[in-house]
Amino acid sequence: MDSEQLRDYGHRMVDFIADYYKTIENFPVLSQVQPGYLHNLLPESAPDHPETLEHVLDDVKTKIFPGLTHWQSPSFFAYYPSNSSVAGFLGEMLSAGLGIVGFSWITSPAATELEMIVLDWLAKLLNLPEQFLSKGNGGGVIQGSASEAVLVVLIAARDKVLRSVGKKELEKLVVYSSDQTHSAFQKACQIAGIHPENCRVLKTDSSTDYALRPEFLQEAVSKDLEAGLIPFFLCANVGTTSSTAVDPLAALGKITKSNEMWLHVDAAYAGSACICPEYRQYIDGVENADSFNMNAHKWFLTNFDCSLLWVKDKDSLTQALSTNPEFLKNKASQANLVVDYKDWQVPLGRRFRSLKLWMVLRLYGAKTLKNYIRNHIKLAKDFEQLVSQDPNFEVITPRIFSLVCFRIVPTENDEKKCNNRNRQLLEAVNSSGKLFMSHTALSGKIVLRCAIGAPLTEEKHVKEAWKVIQEKASYLIHK
Amino acid sequence: MDSEQLRDYGHRMVDFIADYYKTIENFPVLSQVQPGYLHNLLPESAPDHPETLEHVLDDVKTKIFPGLTHWQSPSFFAYYPSNSSVAGFLGEMLSAGLGIVGFSWITSPAATELEMIVLDWLAKLLNLPEQFLSKGNGGGVIQGSASEAVLVVLIAARDKVLRSVGKKELEKLVVYSSDQTHSAFQKACQIAGIHPENCRVLKTDSSTDYALRPEFLQEAVSKDLEAGLIPFFLCANVGTTSSTAVDPLAALGKITKSNEMWLHVDAAYAGSACICPEYRQYIDGVENADSFNMNAHKWFLTNFDCSLLWVKDKDSLTQALSTNPEFLKNKASQANLVVDYKDWQVPLGRRFRSLKLWMVLRLYGAKTLKNYIRNHIKLAKDFEQLVSQDPNFEVITPRIFSLVCFRIVPTENDEKKCNNRNRQLLEAVNSSGKLFMSHTALSGKIVLRCAIGAPLTEEKHVKEAWKVIQEKASYLIHK
Repeated sequence: MDSEQLRDYGHRMVDFIADYYKTIENFPVLSQVQPGYLHNLLPESAPDHPETLEHVLDDVKTKIFPGLTHWQSPSFFAYYPSNSSVAGFLGEMLSAGLGIVGFSWITSPAATELEMIVLDWLAKLLNLPEQFLSKGNGGGVIQGSASEAVLVVLIAARDKVLRSVGKKELEKLVVYSSDQTHSAFQKACQIAGIHPENCRVLKTDSSTDYALRPEFLQEAVSKDLEAGLIPFFLCANVGTTSSTAVDPLAALGKITKSNEMWLHVDAAYAGSACICPEYRQYIDGVENADSFNMNAHKWFLTNFDCSLLWVKDKDSLTQALSTNPEFLKNKASQANLVVDYKDWQVPLGRRFRSLKLWMVLRLYGAKTLKNYIRNHIKLAKDFEQLVSQDPNFEVITPRIFSLVCFRIVPTENDEKKCNNRNRQLLEAVNSSGKLFMSHTALSGKIVLRCAIGAPLTEEKHVKEAWKVIQEKASYLIHK
Repeated sequence: MDSEQLRDYGHRMVDFIADYYKTIENFPVLSQVQPGYLHNLLPESAPDHPETLEHVLDDVKTKIFPGLTHWQSPSFFAYYPSNSSVAGFLGEMLSAGLGIVGFSWITSPAATELEMIVLDWLAKLLNLPEQFLSKGNGGGVIQGSASEAVLVVLIAARDKVLRSVGKKELEKLVVYSSDQTHSAFQKACQIAGIHPENCRVLKTDSSTDYALRPEFLQEAVSKDLEAGLIPFFLCANVGTTSSTAVDPLAALGKITKSNEMWLHVDAAYAGSACICPEYRQYIDGVENADSFNMNAHKWFLTNFDCSLLWVKDKDSLTQALSTNPEFLKNKASQANLVVDYKDWQVPLGRRFRSLKLWMVLRLYGAKTLKNYIRNHIKLAKDFEQLVSQDPNFEVITPRIFSLVCFRIVPTENDEKKCNNRNRQLLEAVNSSGKLFMSHTALSGKIVLRCAIGAPLTEEKHVKEAWKVIQEKASYLIHK
């Protein structure tokens, strides 16, 4: 680690990356390589002797680039966006450059304290209840992903209830979610040892735009109680992955509260929109939640990974996840004067991730961030309108944020044929290389998802995407 | 994300970081701030309007730097090192710059394929058995930390045995480890719902230099079998956190094999040394292991996080951790033509971490990396000799790699007083700001740990550290 070599090579890498962004629209958005393509392009083993940076960067261009799916392309509309920004990038650089590991307060007090402060800032922007702030028994923490966020709160809730009913009762514990909930929740249950037959997946349909019906939850909970089981956890959604459905938090929270269940709110994607007063309504009812999660790395200009989790009762987290080996003991921790984030997460080690979120908030400011969100939602509205105006297409479930779910309409009421046609459309659109969208199924219908939110996306990219879709659809319809 | 702003700001950040390394020796190694120091230095809420990069970087210097514990300082000897290097830093930059998320092969084929290739390269450098390579049913994967590595293999092993004995038998499952095993294993057991009374922590002592005795394992397993329990997992260590103890893998592997137990090898720190032929002996017996873990982010010049995990039976991982929601389905995955690393780990999202490991291997080459390791071990030998030559001190447990465990010798056989004195010594040394060491307890003795492995550490830093320790000790002994 020579500082002058770092300076020299670092400058060259900055130019390399800046040049990538200059030419990003030239690449097929979805990589078009075949499985195993890289195997024959690289040697069988590591080199014995040093190679030059030029050589490596040449290989990045000629061998790695073809195998990239360009998430930062303005024509990336798949899944949900994973934002990169200048501020986020600088924060990542600084974090990598400082190279500290902040598992306990003492291992870099600034890392822990900046994280607490910045998560308080964001809680205020989201207008979260006071109990989620760090000054009481609550607080925020940066997890790697929404999957880890839901896992740690599930473990906290599981252990909290098992402490009161006895740990032999694990097999009686029941969790609830809608059938629109992200697969991360199912995975968390698998890891936590919740019995699969105790995972209630409650049905939704178009009548509520795929939101969970409180009466379904009430019914399921009552039935489980009657059967002698122990309902203990609800994972509610604000902005589902398939279609941005919003579960009614207020009504659901009444049920969880009266049954002493943990309410987790997964707002991984849509949480970012809730910094705008006009979208804050979608998390009304968060007062009754025990934990709330949004991914700053999705739609908040903060480079992956940066998943924000707030809890009201940090003790329940630390009681479930603490360890205290002699080799990590130190005065500040032993005196209980500080937060040690190692006890709020699965891993021990942790990067200085709050730097990038701090830099995003400071270099852009809250007003810019709100307008950033609004602009994407406006583009999505435009796209929705384009779809509605074309009789060959229909919008499936109303757009709320910046995702539009749509498909080619069925002919002769043949849903199976319609699904095939929409799959073909997706395939044709994505193999054009001009844009990348993904799909989902809603009530058995195969639906294309246009998720707007890449930082570089402008009106022209949305219009161009629609043109490609229309062309490919027209070919499919008339062939 | 404007490419010219990225270029401009990126260059400034490179200079900022290069300047940090130029002056890194001027800072107290261990941060000397008080809990809560940052709260009053930063505003209560995020700014509404953008601030300048100058302003932010000034704040980093004046407000963040005092709260850093400088892991990259040449006088950082605490815990284990967390290496940063020019190549590792460039890899982090490139990964953040490209901003891709490689959870499934299709989301960036290069990310998955480069990871498979580079982990094969490293498996070959370590001379791991063929079954850990990606061409068969094995393979390597980058996890965030050793904690996540042991968690995912524990879950895989748990579910594998529960599939055969029935999932109601969870409470009969028994895990084994020595009392020197990292707390990450205890935490993994907590998360996975292994009953605490079924976690056998087998005693070690100085007679085996804190290595696990195979006969103790055999005895415990036999007893548990007799009691109708189900032994299923051993976490063995190559280079424990306290003292780099090495468990005898060959003998332990015979026992796990004959009892159909999963053998996991945690070589988080010492694994790196095993690329040198003269240290490879310490993982002899890895043939019988089911999984093997080493942290490239500790002592292998690869910036945190980069924890390498190899398994022989990838199906057992994916059977435990797979989910397959409609919104992630794609042709390549459905046809089973590709690896989707999302099913090898806890989170869904994943960064392009193989880039940095690839750049470390290529920009330095295997020979340089071997000499890098050897140099640190030589420095540790020198330090060990300095300690041995001073009658006020003793080396506790023989040095194997680059960690020296030592203490001030007891006077009048008073172990309690001796422990206090060593705690005071640690406190005095660390509050000098001139170096940072941590401690552990071995057979009840408080011991200082001098872990050499920071990339910038040279002979003079080790000598200077010893001088400070002698000075502080002399004061304590004679006061």
